[in-house]
Amino acid sequence: MLPDEVRAVLEEMRTERIHGASWLAMRGAEAYVLLSELLEGEELEMALREMRREIPSVNRTMASLYNLARFIPITGSPEIVRSRAGEFIRLAQEAKREIGNIGSELIDENDVVITHSFSSAVLEILKSAWRKGKRFRVILTESAPDYEGIALANELHSLGIPHEVITDAQLGLFAKNATLALVGADNVTKDGYVVNKAGTYPLALACHDSGVPFYVAAESFKLHPELESKEVEIVERPYTRQGHRVRNFIFDVTPWRYVRGIITELGVLVPPKEI
Amino acid sequence: MLPDEVRAVLEEMRTERIHGASWLAMRGAEAYVLLSELLEGEELEMALREMRREIPSVNRTMASLYNLARFIPITGSPEIVRSRAGEFIRLAQEAKREIGNIGSELIDENDVVITHSFSSAVLEILKSAWRKGKRFRVILTESAPDYEGIALANELHSLGIPHEVITDAQLGLFAKNATLALVGADNVTKDGYVVNKAGTYPLALACHDSGVPFYVAAESFKLHPELESKEVEIVERPYTRQGHRVRNFIFDVTPWRYVRGIITELGVLVPPKEI
Repeated sequence: MLPDEVRAVLEEMRTERIHGASWLAMRGAEAYVLLSELLEGEELEMALREMRREIPSVNRTMASLYNLARFIPITGSPEIVRSRAGEFIRLAQEAKREIGNIGSELIDENDVVITHSFSSAVLEILKSAWRKGKRFRVILTESAPDYEGIALANELHSLGIPHEVITDAQLGLFAKNATLALVGADNVTKDGYVVNKAGTYPLALACHDSGVPFYVAAESFKLHPELESKEVEIVERPYTRQGHRVRNFIFDVTPWRYVRGIITELGVLVPPKEI
Repeated sequence: MLPDEVRAVLEEMRTERIHGASWLAMRGAEAYVLLSELLEGEELEMALREMRREIPSVNRTMASLYNLARFIPITGSPEIVRSRAGEFIRLAQEAKREIGNIGSELIDENDVVITHSFSSAVLEILKSAWRKGKRFRVILTESAPDYEGIALANELHSLGIPHEVITDAQLGLFAKNATLALVGADNVTKDGYVVNKAGTYPLALACHDSGVPFYVAAESFKLHPELESKEVEIVERPYTRQGHRVRNFIFDVTPWRYVRGIITELGVLVPPKEI
């Protein structure tokens, strides 16, 4: 049985609608720290075994949660759990900074960067490029029905980065005028497919059709070591509009062939030749 | 000066958000009938000259309005105006029936038909196929921000045609599982580009990527005799969400190469070989 305090964090993670895979992984790591403060010995071991199931089940589509749960060993020692969870958090923070640094080099003066939904890694790249004095503007979708795009617009507004919000249906229209596409990822499968907010795949297609380079920003803990694209389970959160049930799969899957590169903290991954 | 009654119809047309190019053309034709009941002689002629400008300006993207205005001669005779407007309405009704008839032949038993926004021509095809006893289901987008898709879902619900509503961002995800795509058009340019509700172009790309045949249903009065794709003016209706201005171009433009055929009342138009 997990302590109530830890259950509360898992519940908060489950109901989160705006933040993505990076935020959830960080929050998950904090849940491990909390656990290490509450339990020890056999109780801790049992709780960690439960966390191995519970953490990935918060959102089965996200590789970050799968990798986090594997990162923490099953042990009775609170010190080891605390230290590993702390290491995960530190590595994740460093990864984000480094992605910002590497990714910002892809942004040229006067670029028009198109993005979809809210990726904290993409925000980091935009921030880093802006700090380096590059001038560019951002086109972003509102991202219905949870409007993560509006949250990103708030961030860009406070940074002073010029931006335009569009509806999700206008992705094709605005991709034509973009010079660079940057999106995040919730999962990069073993066979190189990018799982990200639904709408990413049509954006990739539109960019491909117009010759706009399409990059994905993802910490290496979002690369799934085992999962293949055909095994991806996509979380759905249907809702009701005017009496009609609306299907709402949160993610879609973009094949490698539409992706110019994946910006990780280790460098930019490009498709192997045979793809 | 146009009579107030006619101005009121034009205003109604301008503020209409759910119905498309066919409905607007019909309503425009009714405005001409109304005009023929109110004016005659020189006054009628002057009003008709004004209508040549006013009718297309209701929505510059729509070929149907352009063609309607050209269909009505400048004359002082109310009888001629009434007769031509009546002919337009009759031809439009016949065209829709015939499109339903022709298009329904493209639907096979157990098809999964994907569509975007609300096209009355597509609805006619679905109705006609359903009446012929074909069993199929429909995937349709809610079509933010005006939710024309919900209006279509209401129609399908009352007809008993199985359907699922999805968000606009899920077009790519659901196109994979479709066996046929059917959309309407607001304008087919002289060089063969299809102007339709924004989101149509990404749907066409996703269908192309998955080998799903993509057809457009359009009365011949939606073929523009002069306009080229690069001259298309796309109407915008920006709105505000949570303090942010959201761009909202109503239409996008899909190149011929992604369209398997255009279902008109005269038959199915296919791209000429050189395209």
